[in-house]
Amino acid sequence: MSQWYKQNMEIRHYMGDRHQRMTLPMLVNVLLEVSEQHSNALGRGDKYIRNKGLSWIILRYAFDIKRLPRVNETVEIGTAATGYNKLFTYRDFLVKDSAGNEPVKITTTFALLDYSSRKLSRITEELVRPYEAKSEKRIRRVSKPFEVNKENKSEKQYRVRYFDIDSNYHVNNSHYITWLLDSLDRVHLSEYEVTTGTITFDKEVSEGQLITSHFSIRMTDEMWTDHSITSHSVTHCQASFKWKKVREEG
Amino acid sequence: MSQWYKQNMEIRHYMGDRHQRMTLPMLVNVLLEVSEQHSNALGRGDKYIRNKGLSWIILRYAFDIKRLPRVNETVEIGTAATGYNKLFTYRDFLVKDSAGNEPVKITTTFALLDYSSRKLSRITEELVRPYEAKSEKRIRRVSKPFEVNKENKSEKQYRVRYFDIDSNYHVNNSHYITWLLDSLDRVHLSEYEVTTGTITFDKEVSEGQLITSHFSIRMTDEMWTDHSITSHSVTHCQASFKWKKVREEG
Repeated sequence: MSQWYKQNMEIRHYMGDRHQRMTLPMLVNVLLEVSEQHSNALGRGDKYIRNKGLSWIILRYAFDIKRLPRVNETVEIGTAATGYNKLFTYRDFLVKDSAGNEPVKITTTFALLDYSSRKLSRITEELVRPYEAKSEKRIRRVSKPFEVNKENKSEKQYRVRYFDIDSNYHVNNSHYITWLLDSLDRVHLSEYEVTTGTITFDKEVSEGQLITSHFSIRMTDEMWTDHSITSHSVTHCQASFKWKKVREEG
Repeated sequence: MSQWYKQNMEIRHYMGDRHQRMTLPMLVNVLLEVSEQHSNALGRGDKYIRNKGLSWIILRYAFDIKRLPRVNETVEIGTAATGYNKLFTYRDFLVKDSAGNEPVKITTTFALLDYSSRKLSRITEELVRPYEAKSEKRIRRVSKPFEVNKENKSEKQYRVRYFDIDSNYHVNNSHYITWLLDSLDRVHLSEYEVTTGTITFDKEVSEGQLITSHFSIRMTDEMWTDHSITSHSVTHCQASFKWKKVREEG
């Protein structure tokens, strides 16, 4: 049984969009803060990892969203490392509301980067023991984002800004999500909400870099959008989101 | 004596820059959240104001910064409405650290906007009574930002993004500060810190709009930068910042 860490959190105004919903970029900021505190509480915080010449990187998010928390709402955020193998650890997040519902579930895949070799480092039992994560022989099979449809895509350009770099000296994850979503048009973002989403990270972007955020729409029984963030021929990030209509524009 | 409202706040990772300092945009987000809670506690929150067809807008910030709070630091944020006249209220913010120092002081000027007429509305005693702000006959004389030197300026362009619009249906103040500062180069932002700053807001920007952030450097005994945010011939925002060197680049 994994060790769950929980924290209550009030959603602040600056975390909300025009419809008083927490934004996905801010949700990710807050989740990562809670996982950071979890690691600190277990003596496996940033400093411990950095002193070994290592750094956690996030390779994948999978979102399952019934509704996003609202401004002024207090939610409980729980997190646990549920399993690990040689290369990856899997961390789950669960947002609970005061009625006991679970409006948001997120699964993430982390890997360890070795600073000097810039390669992935093997995850040792010593590193993950306090989390009580299950050792798994196999690498989990997870779904990947769909490719963007090149025949029918739209795009916007973004420049990586000074303040996009966070205290880990990397572009903060939340900005990729802003670039992914902001490429969609205003009416779409206002009328629809993400219900399911997968984001994968391939190659980091750097400060000052010009990147392009592409998307195409895919209609099945539901509406999906498929995304990529590229610079020249390099793909930095891919994503697919499923949407539901929630309101008329306004 | 004005009614001071105080709240402790731990600085989170997502609020910090690469040097573990709280960013100025996040500082402003957090201050406004505390002032929002202050108003709620006095029965003068957002809803009360909105029900009167009114909205508070911010016209000016003046920063006095000895140092910015650091990631993981807990500070106390105090705020009070210190005075008002027919058109403006003046709200002060004071950041205290655990040693009892006051690393940040900020003075702000607010006005009341009437939604339907889009004009400033007179500030009534009834609105501000609970804050115990001093009624002032005169409008305070405050310093203005310097004009950008047209002979010797640099500029960057920004597009107003979907998530820049906040739960008040306006571009959140913090984004103007990001546009102002991001126009400066990376080395400057990394090696220097703001010690004094004045920002004034003239005309709001709208979603999707392309805006230009200009700056020029002015050397007196100290280094200053003067800024404006414009679209076509409209000036939306002006600022002047005084800087001190804090480190070699790295």
